[in-house]
Amino acid sequence: MTSRAVILGLGISLDGYIARRDGSVDFLVMDPDYDWMAFYKKIDVWLLGRKTLNDALKMQGGKDFDSQGLRTIVFSRSLEPGNYKGCTVTRDEPAEVVRQLREQPGKDIWLGGGGELVRSFLEADLVDRMDLGIVPTLIGDGLPLFPAGFPERKFKLVESRAYPKTGLLTVSYERVR
Amino acid sequence: MTSRAVILGLGISLDGYIARRDGSVDFLVMDPDYDWMAFYKKIDVWLLGRKTLNDALKMQGGKDFDSQGLRTIVFSRSLEPGNYKGCTVTRDEPAEVVRQLREQPGKDIWLGGGGELVRSFLEADLVDRMDLGIVPTLIGDGLPLFPAGFPERKFKLVESRAYPKTGLLTVSYERVR
Repeated sequence: MTSRAVILGLGISLDGYIARRDGSVDFLVMDPDYDWMAFYKKIDVWLLGRKTLNDALKMQGGKDFDSQGLRTIVFSRSLEPGNYKGCTVTRDEPAEVVRQLREQPGKDIWLGGGGELVRSFLEADLVDRMDLGIVPTLIGDGLPLFPAGFPERKFKLVESRAYPKTGLLTVSYERVR
Repeated sequence: MTSRAVILGLGISLDGYIARRDGSVDFLVMDPDYDWMAFYKKIDVWLLGRKTLNDALKMQGGKDFDSQGLRTIVFSRSLEPGNYKGCTVTRDEPAEVVRQLREQPGKDIWLGGGGELVRSFLEADLVDRMDLGIVPTLIGDGLPLFPAGFPERKFKLVESRAYPKTGLLTVSYERVR
């Protein structure tokens, strides 16, 4: 067993949405001073829910998923397990997938949404860390990062940083078990 | 007209709730280094929704509302306008109440919840500033600070501060119009 951490990493609106109802994320800003590579270097696998994958594919116009060079695993009960649009589809439970990943050496594991998959991971207490980027906009409605319906989970604030150019606020939390 | 700002000021869980479903707020922490008086000194009136008032009265065991020495105005369509449990009940729209307050000299105006009143204020674009304290706990369900259903509102991040003893993170935003 390795100690590969599961990191929930996402940009969100100030009212906690990862996307608008139609899946678009135009309200997100990428601050020029935010070091995306520092996050990217920590991870080598990307976990996604099927709806989030579909929204991303729609935005990309139907081509294969742009996995950023990462191994990408998609959780779905409707798709056939195996290769799909440049990803690996699984019907396994999150705990089983994480267990299997931890049997192999590797970097940390990026949990990249959407909300329903995040809820499953929180139910199973699989989220070790959260790296969130909060943009200074209330969008009023959308797809929540934390849809209701999981047990209380305490975290520890380990870092926060404000980015003056865009008003982005990044926060990092570690699970307290 | 004075420039009395409407400040939305509340503690919230990391998943954006101001209270549990039953109105309890046991998950909130008051960090010993947080300067509550600095906020308190800026304001002289407290705006509340009727449900939030009722939850507070329930927690206090049925006595008059502990208004902390502030003039407290409660928005309600079911209660009779006038004095009630140490508060002033109004049936006026938020914009009208704010307009009347601004005709008088005074300090800033504290919007203290709940979510439904916050949504009304955001619909009418009456929130000038937000001072939020985010505790490092996902509670999984509760009463949201920002219930869905208002237009997009952009803000500017003006301050953020981490409190290491409890993991509280305070953030201040100003409305960009």
